[in-house]
Amino acid sequence: MIDRYTLPEMKEIWSDAYRYRTWLDVELAACRAMENAGIVPAGVADGIQGKVPDASRIDEIEKTTRHDVIAFLTHMEEIAGEQARWLHLGMTSSDVLDTAFALQLTKSLDNILQELDQLRDACRTQADRLRHLPVIGRSHGIHAELTSMGLVFARFYAALGRDRQRILAARKSVAVGKLSGAVGTYAHLSPELEKEALGSLGLEPETVSTQVVQRDRHSEMFNALATAAGNIEQMALTVRHWQRTEVGEAREAFRSGQKGSSAMPHKRNPILSENLTGIARIVRAAAGAALENIALWHERDISHSSVERVIAPDATTALHFMYRRAARVISGLVIDKKAIEKNISMTGGLCFSEAVLLGLVQKGLGRQQAYELVQRNAMKAWDEGDDFKELLKADAGIAEKLTPGEIDEFFDPSHAIRYADEIIDRALKD
Amino acid sequence: MIDRYTLPEMKEIWSDAYRYRTWLDVELAACRAMENAGIVPAGVADGIQGKVPDASRIDEIEKTTRHDVIAFLTHMEEIAGEQARWLHLGMTSSDVLDTAFALQLTKSLDNILQELDQLRDACRTQADRLRHLPVIGRSHGIHAELTSMGLVFARFYAALGRDRQRILAARKSVAVGKLSGAVGTYAHLSPELEKEALGSLGLEPETVSTQVVQRDRHSEMFNALATAAGNIEQMALTVRHWQRTEVGEAREAFRSGQKGSSAMPHKRNPILSENLTGIARIVRAAAGAALENIALWHERDISHSSVERVIAPDATTALHFMYRRAARVISGLVIDKKAIEKNISMTGGLCFSEAVLLGLVQKGLGRQQAYELVQRNAMKAWDEGDDFKELLKADAGIAEKLTPGEIDEFFDPSHAIRYADEIIDRALKD
Amino acid sequence: MIDRYTLPEMKEIWSDAYRYRTWLDVELAACRAMENAGIVPAGVADGIQGKVPDASRIDEIEKTTRHDVIAFLTHMEEIAGEQARWLHLGMTSSDVLDTAFALQLTKSLDNILQELDQLRDACRTQADRLRHLPVIGRSHGIHAELTSMGLVFARFYAALGRDRQRILAARKSVAVGKLSGAVGTYAHLSPELEKEALGSLGLEPETVSTQVVQRDRHSEMFNALATAAGNIEQMALTVRHWQRTEVGEAREAFRSGQKGSSAMPHKRNPILSENLTGIARIVRAAAGAALENIALWHERDISHSSVERVIAPDATTALHFMYRRAARVISGLVIDKKAIEKNISMTGGLCFSEAVLLGLVQKGLGRQQAYELVQRNAMKAWDEGDDFKELLKADAGIAEKLTPGEIDEFFDPSHAIRYADEIIDRALKD
Amino acid sequence: MIDRYTLPEMKEIWSDAYRYRTWLDVELAACRAMENAGIVPAGVADGIQGKVPDASRIDEIEKTTRHDVIAFLTHMEEIAGEQARWLHLGMTSSDVLDTAFALQLTKSLDNILQELDQLRDACRTQADRLRHLPVIGRSHGIHAELTSMGLVFARFYAALGRDRQRILAARKSVAVGKLSGAVGTYAHLSPELEKEALGSLGLEPETVSTQVVQRDRHSEMFNALATAAGNIEQMALTVRHWQRTEVGEAREAFRSGQKGSSAMPHKRNPILSENLTGIARIVRAAAGAALENIALWHERDISHSSVERVIAPDATTALHFMYRRAARVISGLVIDKKAIEKNISMTGGLCFSEAVLLGLVQKGLGRQQAYELVQRNAMKAWDEGDDFKELLKADAGIAEKLTPGEIDEFFDPSHAIRYADEIIDRALKD
Repeated sequence: MIDRYTLPEMKEIWSDAYRYRTWLDVELAACRAMENAGIVPAGVADGIQGKVPDASRIDEIEKTTRHDVIAFLTHMEEIAGEQARWLHLGMTSSDVLDTAFALQLTKSLDNILQELDQLRDACRTQADRLRHLPVIGRSHGIHAELTSMGLVFARFYAALGRDRQRILAARKSVAVGKLSGAVGTYAHLSPELEKEALGSLGLEPETVSTQVVQRDRHSEMFNALATAAGNIEQMALTVRHWQRTEVGEAREAFRSGQKGSSAMPHKRNPILSENLTGIARIVRAAAGAALENIALWHERDISHSSVERVIAPDATTALHFMYRRAARVISGLVIDKKAIEKNISMTGGLCFSEAVLLGLVQKGLGRQQAYELVQRNAMKAWDEGDDFKELLKADAGIAEKLTPGEIDEFFDPSHAIRYADEIIDRALKD
Repeated sequence: MIDRYTLPEMKEIWSDAYRYRTWLDVELAACRAMENAGIVPAGVADGIQGKVPDASRIDEIEKTTRHDVIAFLTHMEEIAGEQARWLHLGMTSSDVLDTAFALQLTKSLDNILQELDQLRDACRTQADRLRHLPVIGRSHGIHAELTSMGLVFARFYAALGRDRQRILAARKSVAVGKLSGAVGTYAHLSPELEKEALGSLGLEPETVSTQVVQRDRHSEMFNALATAAGNIEQMALTVRHWQRTEVGEAREAFRSGQKGSSAMPHKRNPILSENLTGIARIVRAAAGAALENIALWHERDISHSSVERVIAPDATTALHFMYRRAARVISGLVIDKKAIEKNISMTGGLCFSEAVLLGLVQKGLGRQQAYELVQRNAMKAWDEGDDFKELLKADAGIAEKLTPGEIDEFFDPSHAIRYADEIIDRALKD
Repeated sequence: MIDRYTLPEMKEIWSDAYRYRTWLDVELAACRAMENAGIVPAGVADGIQGKVPDASRIDEIEKTTRHDVIAFLTHMEEIAGEQARWLHLGMTSSDVLDTAFALQLTKSLDNILQELDQLRDACRTQADRLRHLPVIGRSHGIHAELTSMGLVFARFYAALGRDRQRILAARKSVAVGKLSGAVGTYAHLSPELEKEALGSLGLEPETVSTQVVQRDRHSEMFNALATAAGNIEQMALTVRHWQRTEVGEAREAFRSGQKGSSAMPHKRNPILSENLTGIARIVRAAAGAALENIALWHERDISHSSVERVIAPDATTALHFMYRRAARVISGLVIDKKAIEKNISMTGGLCFSEAVLLGLVQKGLGRQQAYELVQRNAMKAWDEGDDFKELLKADAGIAEKLTPGEIDEFFDPSHAIRYADEIIDRALKD
Repeated sequence: MIDRYTLPEMKEIWSDAYRYRTWLDVELAACRAMENAGIVPAGVADGIQGKVPDASRIDEIEKTTRHDVIAFLTHMEEIAGEQARWLHLGMTSSDVLDTAFALQLTKSLDNILQELDQLRDACRTQADRLRHLPVIGRSHGIHAELTSMGLVFARFYAALGRDRQRILAARKSVAVGKLSGAVGTYAHLSPELEKEALGSLGLEPETVSTQVVQRDRHSEMFNALATAAGNIEQMALTVRHWQRTEVGEAREAFRSGQKGSSAMPHKRNPILSENLTGIARIVRAAAGAALENIALWHERDISHSSVERVIAPDATTALHFMYRRAARVISGLVIDKKAIEKNISMTGGLCFSEAVLLGLVQKGLGRQQAYELVQRNAMKAWDEGDDFKELLKADAGIAEKLTPGEIDEFFDPSHAIRYADEIIDRALKD
């Protein structure tokens, strides 16, 4: 979690102060359930509620105890007095840690989903706005057939919908706590008490816990974040390609006062999109580490803990930041229609080669034979810059099957994207 | 996909012959939809149905065309004659490739789920059978409190249930094909035709395709496989720990005629579990590569293809194999109750230290003070091998609060696992 | 290791037959050292030398023994008779396996280095040939300043030199065997005997072995392969960018008879380079798995074995294939000088903006002030397509400092790449 | 870089203040070379030397410029006045950034190497001290043959030596800067000037740069760090195994006042070693991300930058911390000789089974036959807890070949580790 890529609402969640407050929330939820069960005298939780743990004092105590939860509890006795000894009764540290971690994660995911929705709205707007704008489609970086600019954003919109589903599923997987004690047997607690306490926090109990909540849940979450980052990378990569000097079909907004290069005053670089491409690698790396956290020794080892201290804040804040930044990029895109048109026309209609091929097959030519007829003219157009349509008309082999008028009909842009509305509407209705 | 870790039913799915047959299935499904739409003469698909593509002949043709689908179509004209020119009409290679890939993946996942269920049954049986067997629980590899052996398997059962959900969700994500042409615009096809053809193959259309189905879907799948592999690794790691010479609580079955070491005739090693641990790393690695496949250039580049040629067979066959092998390990486990008892008793009751701590707190001691009283006796028991219970009784500070009889009550194994049934039943009811 | 990306000489190394022959080489080397030490009767090795193990028979025996080396030794007794019982004396399986693995790896690396050198030669040739060809340099995908096409290949050449060093260092790291027995203590052997036997195979002894050679050595190797793959990916990415329709500065050779698309006869795609991009991901993934193999239990566990069975053939054959293919791409590149010139001139000289900036600073303007003067004209040139040089001359702020003649001087291509020779010569002299 | 795992000397290197000071160092080195070349008036660098950039002010300016180096230069004009306009003449941002990055990395690596040496000393001391202490060797977690405790630390020592070499090689690879301008052509600079300036900073020039230093260099470094982390993980894993309750052969020192568990006062957990196991995963993850940074677009894209902002501080500070912590663990290890002896004797001499096997072969038995004779007694000893030696003596098949006295001789611990001194001395002499 580096400041540069962390927005305030996420920084808050992963602050020491927030973590200790969340620990206290968990202890108090457990305490109240114990009060109801008659294990702890009524009123203890209310008496402690409102005391604010002091992170720096806890850190100081930890230097002696070498154990963070014990340091926290010691500090609670300092600030809440005698009654604090009722806290943590029959509980093990991980009851607090894992349950609080679930609260931090679900809150983080809620923030992420909110930003995802902003980006999705931006994609919807562009999809709608640009649905009838033809643009050359490219496979392998090479001109293929026409598509619609709106379709690109509808595709992003659909991908975000899938990410939404995956993140929601992952949220469910990690919205799980435990109050089952040192090895998950409720040795000094009970399933009922756990259910009540966790329920009050909005969490489910782990089906079968050990000392900890099972880590395949977190792996699922980090994977969902990494895949989501991959989809943002896809958008960023698209913008970077569009903004290439030779392509120029769209570019990131450039603020007044902004400088593209310390050396070259003419530069306007897609730096936000490049930045997003890089951050995606960071989120990806976290998923790999999380996968190694699943297999723990017996009823738990603590190897996963140092990993999660790093990757949980890093991956959640980074993805949250990515959505915010991507939304800004997508909303602010400057579309250059002239460049789009110039690119479409630069190959003299090669993007309609398949239509001609199919026309020849319809007229009874074998597929391979038709292919060769069209290909020989296309290669000539590429290599010598001749107009593809004119070459076709002049080709005797083709003239046997197709009249010039029939050939003209194959070169119709609006026919090429006639289904854009249907596809976009299908995507956006979700 | 190496033979050693590939079972026949998976080898079949990823064979050349199967792939080409699946391509033909896709072409015929599309052809039938075109017949219904009047684009292709009725009867073509029926006329070609049953022709079996010859993989080696296709490979030969590909040496010239440098393009696999074109080689396949050329070969189809060889074996099905004139009518084959109606195949692939208006389609692009990826219409065939991605749709066929979806069929191979869903078939693979079905096989995987079948093996998962076998393993899950094995875990259920052990959870049931061993539910009342106390075993020392361990955190950090150190004795903690008692748990039940059945709980361990109930935990595995629950984890497999989560993997089942994730794999089913991933199956849904990848059960998606496309017949939308070169850039996803249905330039020479239509959404209706796609829906009909894919429906006949049990697939959904991609919401917004480019030349290809979107690769976040596959990333989700590889991630689900990697997480599932992580859960098997967790089981394997547990068996390896149990089988350690000093622990000896359970071990893999050892076949007659089997040799553990070429050098040391006394060896019986947990080699199946170690093997599973290793294979998990392979499946994990595939997930990392799949994440890099999401972001493609514009309407597609083909960089993902070589990756998928390797990781799709590798990861699916490896996980399938892991489940089969893990089921054998879990079903065949030899449980050593004597060793289990010996381990429980080796610390003279240290695993009940928390009960004593809580007893002292109930008697009015502050938590930290109680902790120190119990800890000083526990450390003495560890270091000098003295009996923990006797030390407690002899400790004046403790004697002030607890009678010897009260202390005895804290050392009750059946109390420690009194909730085992409830937890196990909760897990197995799913 | 899939056939598609495996050349015959690498397929051979990783075949079963080769592996068993290598095992026999190791056994015979050890046997000869034992003969010299008087532990084994003279002549045994010579008597067995030349017997060829039958892989399928060994596999059959392994079905009973569940142990590959024991199956191999049993088979050797079958084909070499009585004297074969002297084989493997005092040795453990890993003495054979790890030493033979070292031989397979070093042979693989030698093959890889040979292909690397071929590619390096191809880069050298292009660097030499194209050293004076100006091409627009790009940062962020945006035109920056001029560079020379030869410099690009000199850069590749230099990168390959670094990979050569890393692979050689890794070769040294893995050219290490062991004949130190079950836990590395030479319980029934001796350091002297190991040194002699390994020396005859061209290997060094592990400094301190356990049952196995230490796996950080292999991690180093897989990392070197992954980094090398990354450098090939860099080249492939460059070619893909050059071949983009709008850029068109260079493209992969297209063979007669080749078809770019089953649908679009006009396509000529950079498929070899895209393929290399994908394979790089596979080699990368192997490095991640190898890193997990380092930490083994005590004197070894066998978890690394299944991983290496997959990644060692996969990563070495894939990189070997990549070099071969990359050499073909680089040698066969079709350079389009017209496109290169067109691209240079398309911005009306914006690539000289820094020269103007520095000229203004030399004339006494503050850097930031000069920057703004140049930037305002550059942005106008971008946005309105006006000629940058003419805009500068017409700008009153600039006219105060620079005459039209001085401005003209800044737009000199040959000045921009005046150091190309020096840099290229510096690189190629290595 | 989270505080918890960052020591002050590394925190310093990656602070904003340090970075800006390093940028200034680079600018001044370049400025001095330009003064010597007569491009910049003499005395400028001396006039600016000693001005301390204010990180927060630079951040403030960057909010407008959206460009960090331009913000820095603007700030330098604020604090050093008019003369500061001579800074950065003809340079591009990456000349400063990459060169300064090289300085931060080499300084980090120097710190890391210093800690590595501390850990290595700790291993040497233990290897020396424990060289004659027999301990049971284990493969697959199962007792194998005897080894010496000192050998384990000699092995760690040797591994650290290899890491030292790799990190030194990586240091050389990244001790490379560039002052070659926007696309690496020295458009407004010269190779001579670069050489002089970089030389004064202790760096080499990049052989062929683009706008940036080539990223395979950094990949090599992150890989070396990840492999080094893997070797620390190996040590940590060993300690964790030793400390397991049932093994108990060694354990981490436990400080007075330390608490092992908030719930269980008896706990003494190997938390430092578990922590190291986790941190290794973080360093590993960084290597994966670094591999993705190699392939950049044309003369650079900036996608690597955000990645490096995170992984460079993270991986270097984490490894530095790991070495410090590992040294503390290794130096402080509490060795329990009684437990070691108990474990050796628990199998009744099974660890000598190979000696018996070889004895039988020497007496003329076929290897497989001898194996079966020994194995049947070993399995009985395992399963029924009988004394292995006595079983052998009572076995008629064995009695035919070996007398009881001969059998006794095979059970000699000192013979088993007779080469420990030789191996350890061989390792430590490096």
